[in-house]
Amino acid sequence: MEEDRPQGPEAETLRECERKTKLFHSDRPENDAEHSWHLAMMTIVLAAHADKPIDVLKVLKMVLIHDLVEIDAGDTFLYDTQKDHTNTEEELLAAQRIFGLLPAAQAAEFIAIWQEFEDGQTDEAKFARAMDRFEPLLQNSSNNGGTWVEFNVPYEKVYEKKKAIRQGSASLWNYAETLLNESVEKGILKKGE
Amino acid sequence: MEEDRPQGPEAETLRECERKTKLFHSDRPENDAEHSWHLAMMTIVLAAHADKPIDVLKVLKMVLIHDLVEIDAGDTFLYDTQKDHTNTEEELLAAQRIFGLLPAAQAAEFIAIWQEFEDGQTDEAKFARAMDRFEPLLQNSSNNGGTWVEFNVPYEKVYEKKKAIRQGSASLWNYAETLLNESVEKGILKKGE
Repeated sequence: MEEDRPQGPEAETLRECERKTKLFHSDRPENDAEHSWHLAMMTIVLAAHADKPIDVLKVLKMVLIHDLVEIDAGDTFLYDTQKDHTNTEEELLAAQRIFGLLPAAQAAEFIAIWQEFEDGQTDEAKFARAMDRFEPLLQNSSNNGGTWVEFNVPYEKVYEKKKAIRQGSASLWNYAETLLNESVEKGILKKGE
Repeated sequence: MEEDRPQGPEAETLRECERKTKLFHSDRPENDAEHSWHLAMMTIVLAAHADKPIDVLKVLKMVLIHDLVEIDAGDTFLYDTQKDHTNTEEELLAAQRIFGLLPAAQAAEFIAIWQEFEDGQTDEAKFARAMDRFEPLLQNSSNNGGTWVEFNVPYEKVYEKKKAIRQGSASLWNYAETLLNESVEKGILKKGE
């Protein structure tokens, strides 16, 4: 069963991909494995908040694998002004190489799921992307502003990115807006001039 | 929606629970969040190897939440001779407190899923437990014996614990036995006297 040998060490590399965002109440940067676990936990806890009925299993697959491409392509900070976060040629090549380590049918399934997440058009992708935007918002607002303060990201830019939460869940967006407003009031998220 | 407020910081604590097992090709101990992510990844990649048809969503819920009780109860090393790993009163109290932070219906669902995993009787629980035993085997065999060497655990004890893999998947057990035999040949897992 050579072909079926589990590819542990490859996916494992994800733990070496550090994100900019720090853990809750912590100075240690989150790694992509922890981030992906957290999105999966949020998905099973918050799935009932999705606006449309969603296939929770598919959303879980999306959030578990969505950042595997960063093994090759690295983490791009959401507010990076030099480099677009999504759908780069580099990420597509990474998806083909990494998922290509699996047997062919499974590779095709995982690449399709990853692409569906990136495209963000289906109800599952919208909810998965909402989780991906919601998690660092929870972290930064619990962490004295975290990367918002560290990288001087103004409220308007954050709001623009976080709006994606609304595509997946009106009630989570409602809560997200409250957190954003509270963060402005606390001075940990500043409106631009 | 006070009651529905995401309990991020509580589950987050799981990242502070260190396991004995080290990451692949690394000296850093794995934390429970990384461990849970890895089991979830293995589940979506290896589900087709289950002997019986399984509800993959339920298995994913099991592996994602199975160690949350360790926030209160701590990690018990699989080969600990002083303390039994499963079904302690301490873990039950932990499950009730931690899952009890969720709305009542969800708390009941999560406690039931955790209990089903602990009992290990259903096909889903057997497969989830197989993942839980398989992962550190992959790690130790890739890691010069890892905790087997560090804590002097003999082949017979390891074999006894790893047999649980056979309950979930004959083909994965077949591969696991090969790894165990190779580890003995390499001298990173020693037969007892």
